Amino acid sequence: MKSYRKELWFEVPARRGFINITPEVESCLAESGVREGLVLVNAMHITASVFVNDDESGLHHDYEIWLETLAPHEPVSGYRHNVGEDNADAHMKRQIMGREAVIAITDGALDLGPWEQIFYGEFDGRRRKRVLVKIIGG
Amino acid sequence: MKSYRKELWFEVPARRGFINITPEVESCLAESGVREGLVLVNAMHITASVFVNDDESGLHHDYEIWLETLAPHEPVSGYRHNVGEDNADAHMKRQIMGREAVIAITDGALDLGPWEQIFYGEFDGRRRKRVLVKIIGG
Amino acid sequence: MKSYRKELWFEVPARRGFINITPEVESCLAESGVREGLVLVNAMHITASVFVNDDESGLHHDYEIWLETLAPHEPVSGYRHNVGEDNADAHMKRQIMGREAVIAITDGALDLGPWEQIFYGEFDGRRRKRVLVKIIGG
Repeated sequence: MKSYRKELWFEVPARRGFINITPEVESCLAESGVREGLVLVNAMHITASVFVNDDESGLHHDYEIWLETLAPHEPVSGYRHNVGEDNADAHMKRQIMGREAVIAITDGALDLGPWEQIFYGEFDGRRRKRVLVKIIGG
Repeated sequence: MKSYRKELWFEVPARRGFINITPEVESCLAESGVREGLVLVNAMHITASVFVNDDESGLHHDYEIWLETLAPHEPVSGYRHNVGEDNADAHMKRQIMGREAVIAITDGALDLGPWEQIFYGEFDGRRRKRVLVKIIGG
Repeated sequence: MKSYRKELWFEVPARRGFINITPEVESCLAESGVREGLVLVNAMHITASVFVNDDESGLHHDYEIWLETLAPHEPVSGYRHNVGEDNADAHMKRQIMGREAVIAITDGALDLGPWEQIFYGEFDGRRRKRVLVKIIGG
């Protein structure tokens, strides 16, 4: 069994944002030499997400509005976690969007549906944060 | 390491619906010959879900009502994604329910709890759509 | 390819609660002897969750309040599932928090970010319930 590991680093300049990381994950897969297996892609931070959805700017705007409705940033004092911090809402938003994606590898390629793209979802940005790519297979 | 891949196709006649796909995943596992490993089951479409929960019609009714509360279909114009489309809410509902399930394989069987069943969750149906089953193990 | 399986049992005395199960998962990994691979940790019950987030009591309080807002326990009669049961809300809360976590194994250790901890999330407790730990790798 082969295995491969890489950390991808991102710095989103705003508090929140979405980055399409599919090309980076594809590069990792090419480096790994794995032809059949699984790739795990997960946020290493608990105020961020890795998820699979559409690369469409209108949708990303809708996600931003929707997540703010479900888990508003303000009032910051509404969360007990926010003692010397202001990111409690980010911990909620990340649960909605999810920590990780597991993606099949077939014939040496990511086995994605026609519109599936892998995203890093940042909910507490303005600093460097990491995504883990772990590949196992043969 | 063995690997196996199959696409399952579904066409839900309504916009939304839930299908218990546990028997199909079990058939895949039998075909694969894998005794110990993992199976990844994921929607290949970004307006659908694969999730694990109870096969109980009252609960499915409750999920339908609940998801409509959290991410309403109407008004369609409330979503920026809905330019020539009307399925933005389906992208939200799928994030709540999740893209994928990873299930253990033990002694050649799905290692599920007593009530765990695997579902395809459709949020933008009335067309043929796919689920990917990928199995790795020994 | 090596594989390993263990069930962890928990009994949360209240209806809801969060338990940090990272040490138990680490013990499983040590027993497995796997150096490179993946560990799947999933609730075997459909009214519970395994998720990765921060071990901070204020945040857990916030999750409790937040989940009750998104999927209230009361009124019990508001859910069609609640015929002779009162746990429909637990099935919703578990979808928000997720069934499972897949975690990379690198150099024989859980490959977690600095604040990532693995939790069992109980939403219908006061009875013994199980988590499955399945490890595959080399």
